[in-house]
Amino acid sequence: MATILDVSRRAGVAKSTVSRVLSGRGYTSDKTREVVLKAAQELNYRPNVLARNLALQTSNTIGLILPSGALVSRYLASLVDEIFKKAQAAGKDVIMKHVDDRPGLAMESIYNLIDHRCEAVMYYNSSSFVNFDDTVAEIDAAIDSFSVPVVLLNGYLPKHPKHCVWYEHARFAAKPVEYLLEHGHRNIAYITGPLNQRTVQERVKGYRQALEHHGIDYNEQLFVEGSYKVLEDDTLSQDVSLMGYEACIELLGRGVNFSAICFANDYLAIGAQKALQERGIDVPDEVSLFGFDDTPVLNYFSPSISSVVLPSTQLINYAVELCFAHLSHSELPDYDSLNFDSELVLRGSVKAL
Amino acid sequence: MATILDVSRRAGVAKSTVSRVLSGRGYTSDKTREVVLKAAQELNYRPNVLARNLALQTSNTIGLILPSGALVSRYLASLVDEIFKKAQAAGKDVIMKHVDDRPGLAMESIYNLIDHRCEAVMYYNSSSFVNFDDTVAEIDAAIDSFSVPVVLLNGYLPKHPKHCVWYEHARFAAKPVEYLLEHGHRNIAYITGPLNQRTVQERVKGYRQALEHHGIDYNEQLFVEGSYKVLEDDTLSQDVSLMGYEACIELLGRGVNFSAICFANDYLAIGAQKALQERGIDVPDEVSLFGFDDTPVLNYFSPSISSVVLPSTQLINYAVELCFAHLSHSELPDYDSLNFDSELVLRGSVKAL
Repeated sequence: MATILDVSRRAGVAKSTVSRVLSGRGYTSDKTREVVLKAAQELNYRPNVLARNLALQTSNTIGLILPSGALVSRYLASLVDEIFKKAQAAGKDVIMKHVDDRPGLAMESIYNLIDHRCEAVMYYNSSSFVNFDDTVAEIDAAIDSFSVPVVLLNGYLPKHPKHCVWYEHARFAAKPVEYLLEHGHRNIAYITGPLNQRTVQERVKGYRQALEHHGIDYNEQLFVEGSYKVLEDDTLSQDVSLMGYEACIELLGRGVNFSAICFANDYLAIGAQKALQERGIDVPDEVSLFGFDDTPVLNYFSPSISSVVLPSTQLINYAVELCFAHLSHSELPDYDSLNFDSELVLRGSVKAL
Repeated sequence: MATILDVSRRAGVAKSTVSRVLSGRGYTSDKTREVVLKAAQELNYRPNVLARNLALQTSNTIGLILPSGALVSRYLASLVDEIFKKAQAAGKDVIMKHVDDRPGLAMESIYNLIDHRCEAVMYYNSSSFVNFDDTVAEIDAAIDSFSVPVVLLNGYLPKHPKHCVWYEHARFAAKPVEYLLEHGHRNIAYITGPLNQRTVQERVKGYRQALEHHGIDYNEQLFVEGSYKVLEDDTLSQDVSLMGYEACIELLGRGVNFSAICFANDYLAIGAQKALQERGIDVPDEVSLFGFDDTPVLNYFSPSISSVVLPSTQLINYAVELCFAHLSHSELPDYDSLNFDSELVLRGSVKAL
């Protein structure tokens, strides 16, 4: 690719003159300007952003770290969209990294983005690390050591509460269970995806806390951990509803009594409803169902499926604002003070006993 | 942030010695190495990737341009995942840009990524540009002018067929219509989303071609263009099924006869099935339904909804491989020769007449 030197040779002027013309900084005569621009055009000259960045000691970018495969979740896709909207409005680029569960990989990516002189780094923690507490300590240390603001999503940094945004998964997941208990249900099953994610573990904790709060013993016969079917290594066709369908069949096979099932996500509930209906078990007359996330498609089933709306949009917006507040050295209200909450959405799949 | 000069001062050695130690290139004694590493650690020194990139005249990144809001589509999310997988395996970063429909913005982003010295640029064309033909000509010109490979997805570059991957939307969309015609249906309606996207326009073209091929006149009374409800500016709650539901009610209100409806996507079909069932119209006895995309959730409706599987995974993989083949100056088989095709998935919502 043509360099400034090539342009200066073709235009017959000094390299510094070319720099002045192309940057628009400093005086040049109209005639010189014209000659330089013509030479640059003829040589297909493109400015070198690498050189500019080095001179300014910034990459003018925001770094974003996501769990690999995560974008298939509509929620994370919206997070990415929101960061892009804000970053582009501020004239900044976004450099993304995907991380899997290998220990240390998240920290390695954070350091790598710092090395890139990103102005801020956002890290969405998928929480399937066994060693997440170590990572938390390391992020705390990185924030202390470098001037680059790191913002953690879906995790709590005890030393830096202004650098993180978290969900109260347990409290949110307890809500539908509480509702059912208050409406006469006693035998409430819980179906979840693989328990290797902290998010899922927290939701299960919420289920157990609600039971305990109402003086009901946890019965492991009413708890099912579903597992993914890997379909020809094809992420496009991952079918979470199939997991819910099979988990529900397993639950039925145990021969234990239940009048309701709560789920760690909506697609599990969709699959379970089909399993029940195929076996002639009426929803909600015999079994009530509560999804989690409130994906719009729940409205279109018969009966329509109840769910829990998470404050995802508010959370995403707050997290992105937090990141930019660090950049502009401005303050946001404390996350704690905002009381983002979940809400129950009652539809046909739930009935009081 | 600490610089190499800071480290050299603290360690009491020359700057060039620090460079040798930190890059691992060239000889230094074990003792010097130890002193330098200790100083670097004490100062929280991080290497400057900007300087390295400028020296090597590459950013070691792949540029990726997507339509804004696009990630909410599972298909594009998978594309992004696949690019990340390949890029990280090759030790490269991905810098992403979102573009909306403003004229010229796509080209501006392509040039900007070239200025960043990206090694390749992938651009997914959402095709809602009125001036897409101009953009095609400009991309062709950019490929001729710069050594940076540009790969266009979902669009055809007449001068550079080895730089693009496209869907045969019209042919794929004709297939379910052909099937219904071959199974006795004559009055086949079509419900689509907003027609400002070329992809949607192509699908409608396929519907009309299939009718024509069977000697049936296009009846505009059987065609409905749905529109999005914008729900409080909240991308998380966009409900395409609601669009299908309302479009179906509009179709029914016209009082025209039809025995089947084809759709430009699955969620439209989900909404329409609900509208029909609420009015006591039996699917498939009175109306057959054909979605488009084959999202797994179709299996869980009653009746389950037929659809068309697109060769999306193959296409995405090919596009990403194409990008990396340009980087390694290797050759791939011609895209045309691979004959990626769509397939019908017949479920309960379709019945022969």
